[in-house]
Amino acid sequence: MNMYESPAFSDVRPADPVLAGRIASCIEKTIPSSAARAVETGRIAAFDLDHYHGERHIYWDSDVAKILEGIAYALRLRPDEKLAALFEAWTKKIVSCQCPDGYLNSYFTAVKPGERWKTLSTQHELYCAGHLMEAAVAGRDLPGGKAFFDAVCRYADLICDTFGRGKNQRRGWPGHEEIELALVKLYRATGNRRYLDQAAYFIDDRGSLPNVFEAEEGITEPFLVNVQADRPVREMTEACGHAVRAVYLYTGMADLARETDDAGLLNVCEKLFDSICSRKMYVTGGIGSSFQGERFTRGYDLANGSLMYAESCAAMGLCQLASRLFDMTGKTLYMDVLETALYNGVLSGISLAGDDFFYTNYLEVDENLVCYNSGSPVRQKWFSCSCCPTSFCRFLPQMGRFIYSLGDGEIAVNIPAANTAELKLADRTVKLKIEGDYPYSGKVRIVVETAGAFTLRLRIPGWCRAWRLAAGGKAYTEPVITKNWQAGEAVELDLDMPADFLHSDPRVTGNLGRAALRRGPVVYALEEIDQTCPVRELVLCADRPVTVGAAPGLPAGTPALRGTALREIFSGSGLYAVGAPRYEETRFTAIPYALWQNRGRTSMCVWNRVRYEKEPPPSAAGCEHGRTRTITDGPGGLACPPKTPRFS
Amino acid sequence: MNMYESPAFSDVRPADPVLAGRIASCIEKTIPSSAARAVETGRIAAFDLDHYHGERHIYWDSDVAKILEGIAYALRLRPDEKLAALFEAWTKKIVSCQCPDGYLNSYFTAVKPGERWKTLSTQHELYCAGHLMEAAVAGRDLPGGKAFFDAVCRYADLICDTFGRGKNQRRGWPGHEEIELALVKLYRATGNRRYLDQAAYFIDDRGSLPNVFEAEEGITEPFLVNVQADRPVREMTEACGHAVRAVYLYTGMADLARETDDAGLLNVCEKLFDSICSRKMYVTGGIGSSFQGERFTRGYDLANGSLMYAESCAAMGLCQLASRLFDMTGKTLYMDVLETALYNGVLSGISLAGDDFFYTNYLEVDENLVCYNSGSPVRQKWFSCSCCPTSFCRFLPQMGRFIYSLGDGEIAVNIPAANTAELKLADRTVKLKIEGDYPYSGKVRIVVETAGAFTLRLRIPGWCRAWRLAAGGKAYTEPVITKNWQAGEAVELDLDMPADFLHSDPRVTGNLGRAALRRGPVVYALEEIDQTCPVRELVLCADRPVTVGAAPGLPAGTPALRGTALREIFSGSGLYAVGAPRYEETRFTAIPYALWQNRGRTSMCVWNRVRYEKEPPPSAAGCEHGRTRTITDGPGGLACPPKTPRFS
Repeated sequence: MNMYESPAFSDVRPADPVLAGRIASCIEKTIPSSAARAVETGRIAAFDLDHYHGERHIYWDSDVAKILEGIAYALRLRPDEKLAALFEAWTKKIVSCQCPDGYLNSYFTAVKPGERWKTLSTQHELYCAGHLMEAAVAGRDLPGGKAFFDAVCRYADLICDTFGRGKNQRRGWPGHEEIELALVKLYRATGNRRYLDQAAYFIDDRGSLPNVFEAEEGITEPFLVNVQADRPVREMTEACGHAVRAVYLYTGMADLARETDDAGLLNVCEKLFDSICSRKMYVTGGIGSSFQGERFTRGYDLANGSLMYAESCAAMGLCQLASRLFDMTGKTLYMDVLETALYNGVLSGISLAGDDFFYTNYLEVDENLVCYNSGSPVRQKWFSCSCCPTSFCRFLPQMGRFIYSLGDGEIAVNIPAANTAELKLADRTVKLKIEGDYPYSGKVRIVVETAGAFTLRLRIPGWCRAWRLAAGGKAYTEPVITKNWQAGEAVELDLDMPADFLHSDPRVTGNLGRAALRRGPVVYALEEIDQTCPVRELVLCADRPVTVGAAPGLPAGTPALRGTALREIFSGSGLYAVGAPRYEETRFTAIPYALWQNRGRTSMCVWNRVRYEKEPPPSAAGCEHGRTRTITDGPGGLACPPKTPRFS
Repeated sequence: MNMYESPAFSDVRPADPVLAGRIASCIEKTIPSSAARAVETGRIAAFDLDHYHGERHIYWDSDVAKILEGIAYALRLRPDEKLAALFEAWTKKIVSCQCPDGYLNSYFTAVKPGERWKTLSTQHELYCAGHLMEAAVAGRDLPGGKAFFDAVCRYADLICDTFGRGKNQRRGWPGHEEIELALVKLYRATGNRRYLDQAAYFIDDRGSLPNVFEAEEGITEPFLVNVQADRPVREMTEACGHAVRAVYLYTGMADLARETDDAGLLNVCEKLFDSICSRKMYVTGGIGSSFQGERFTRGYDLANGSLMYAESCAAMGLCQLASRLFDMTGKTLYMDVLETALYNGVLSGISLAGDDFFYTNYLEVDENLVCYNSGSPVRQKWFSCSCCPTSFCRFLPQMGRFIYSLGDGEIAVNIPAANTAELKLADRTVKLKIEGDYPYSGKVRIVVETAGAFTLRLRIPGWCRAWRLAAGGKAYTEPVITKNWQAGEAVELDLDMPADFLHSDPRVTGNLGRAALRRGPVVYALEEIDQTCPVRELVLCADRPVTVGAAPGLPAGTPALRGTALREIFSGSGLYAVGAPRYEETRFTAIPYALWQNRGRTSMCVWNRVRYEKEPPPSAAGCEHGRTRTITDGPGGLACPPKTPRFS
């Protein structure tokens, strides 16, 4: 356990075609616009407890905390006086709200002072507390940060005093998990074991009998399942309920397992993760397929259209969980999932401009026809419950840390996106540079800029079926190079990155007869704006050549995929007609799914109808199909496992 | 206008493989079981106004009225002392509830006496009144019927006094339409013009300004659209809102148009009908595709699974509307739709046993996987809002009347289901007999048992592409025979009835790459119980032979369809895999959709994946595709129009 640590995100500066631009637009647009909306909507004024008489919401404090956390991260990447001033002013305002006993929640203090801790299952009190803790840890060293941090620690102390199985304590669990992982962060920041113990209390008491939610609030199934409180967490084997809450809880469990060397708890996390990625995850890494309860449903229930959900926050939460589990186990499956979610289901949630957001990340939108039941099929500037925009504020600046993991005398390159890094190993700092256009190209050059002996371990992604590795004129057949590096020495990694048609388990009934296009870790979608006819009329010819070209209207260097398709011509004059439709040959263009709806509103589809004219190509037939991959098997990707060995 | 009248249903006795059995099970099972449940649930005791203290609902009176209407019809087909006694006892109880001023509603009298007529948009008061009127007309001649009829007329008089634009009247419209058609029935039963005028008031005032629902109840869109009150009915061009309410309203409008020779109003009805059958109707005749509001949505929004609706009551309402419009216009499109709905989307709603009901008539149910959002995928014995079972009570006994329409010296055979009939033309009664297994066979023998001169006009169904007609050794090329018939003279009609694969307009995105099997008017479905593998894994080979055979476990004579399919073998080990799936050849068996889930719970699918290996067969290519069919064009079916001439 605890094979790796993630580097500080600010030690890694992406310079790639995807992450770097998203980080910049987050700092320049996402955070300032979210801050402006927090002001406009009253979220900041709400901390003027007695003077603000507008509408309030139970989750408002969390939005503000998440923006503050994002500001703190942004300031570590780039100085910004305005953002620094905002941090100081807002945290001062928040601190001014603290009750004498340490309690710190604008909603309950102003609106329902008598109802503090009364309805934990639905009122987001401990959830807001958790986000305050994360923000306080993030901004501790900023102007105003110390006072804020101290205030939040006092609040945390009150929570530790209040909840537990001890004398003069009461049992209680958060309805929306988050505080567990936040308390572990606070423990790491302070060294105060009490916070770790409190995280352990919230995790281990949860779902135990007598069930607090049942006894005190009359909560029953299915809501108990939706808040992951139907059984003790160590008895869980299947990801259930509200997806964001679930992955936040599992992340807290993983953090606790790491800090307490609890192999049993880690094993529970791994099982839960497996239940997600083997049965409940979109090809984009989106999770939580039902809008009713924003939740996981049964396995293979992964509709693409009007009914689906796949909340942006849930995809970000999955990355967070996958990153923790990778660092603890070194199993590349976790990085495969992280990479999939990152480049697809996370980044689809925000426009390239940085201030338009999806709550629901549809895999299919028909502009002309469909009533959307589960959320807007158009990115919005803000939401009444605006968790997704504020999640982007804090998620995007940190993305650089996913690129590497640091071990004992070892640097693992997880995602070879171009960057410059100063990586802190136990005994020294190693400067490293990665060049290339990953994820749009598989050709990667890694330059070691600090001389010294260490191991460079390269992840061969699950989607990659053939690769070549060379350093100093020598070819490697294992992706691990241990040597005494010279300053300036380069490693050349070449990952084959063909366009692949994926099909899915037939139990995902919405994908029957359909295929998704993927190239490298990037899932593609057809936008109607690029086609000669409505997307729905296209049947892709999967064994004709697919070429890579420019994507009109998208950032330079974004590769579009082009291939042959048949257009279905309806032969009837009413709704239904006898016999086969007619087909005409045409072309199709696909663009990275995460970039859809950046050129105006248009219909879009990830899983398109597909037709194979020949036998399956050898590349597919050659896969080791039929082997059951589980997490405990070690490596394993989303698709066929590579024939080349990978580390595990 | 007013080309035909429907015969009295009791003059036509079906002896066919479908309708006869359903009528029998209705009388023997549906009506008695619904009556028993009405008692169990308190719906009858609720008429003991002061003594019943259980739960009550605003729509309960309608359920009781519909069962009474069904009993009255059943008694016209078959004497039954128990049912007759029930009718007498229940109607007596209802009459005892009448207020001195004529008001008759158990809910408002007992629960909300001060709120009479206060919230018409949602409270179903006038809807319940309408059903009392239909029951009273149906049972007028039964023991107890006269007192009931008189009481209901007094209630109708109160309604006529209350609502209108006259002095001492108030404006008001039913939130759930029904009373319009009921008042026309009451007018026909009494000759009292006042009831017709009142129907005209409810129809023509509806949606006019100032909008009563808006002004008095603060109702706005989309609910105004859902109750068809967003505009005057004569300005409507598109079927909108709650599907049952819509078709009840349109039926009332058609009835009013007929009685007042109002060609403009009929034209509105025809336009609305066209909007349904050309854009908003399932291949089964199901309508109202969204469970949210039980309503019509945009055209082509016809999902097959978890999200769909297609309420049983709506399909019955569509039959009722189509029957009216056919009788007024003679356009066979209406009969095509009626026949489709009758044999598929209506009868699917009730088990062969007669006492299990679908509210939602799914076209696809996956037993293993899917969470159903819009209703149970299993037939239920009763519902808290139990409109569908009680609709069957009154609909099924009347089905014989759809077989014929009677004109001036003319008998139109609409649906050549076997039966014996005594049809009353203006000047005489004609005995007729139809033999054969229609809708399971296209070979039909019509025996004229009463000598005399009249025209026999045979409908050539929209699904039929070739047919032969002979009488007295002479072949006919037009389906109209005018002659002086000898008693015992027979007509032989032979309708080609191949199994057809239908595809649908690609805007129905759920049907992309899929086909529905239809033979004659009967739509088929694959039940998993009949297959060698899960239904979802099958791809039907549409140009291999399909044979007709016995359907195991279904009533003798029910034809199953058998053909070749490919079974998709998933080649991956996770959720997604690279490359084409593998296929194995197998067989499939399809049964009539209306009979699904009569052999236990099993997955079912109407629109299955399909594969054409050759060019489209000539039968399909030979259709007159591309011609735009509208109702005003005259004949036109669901699929390709027949090449043979048909009357219009």
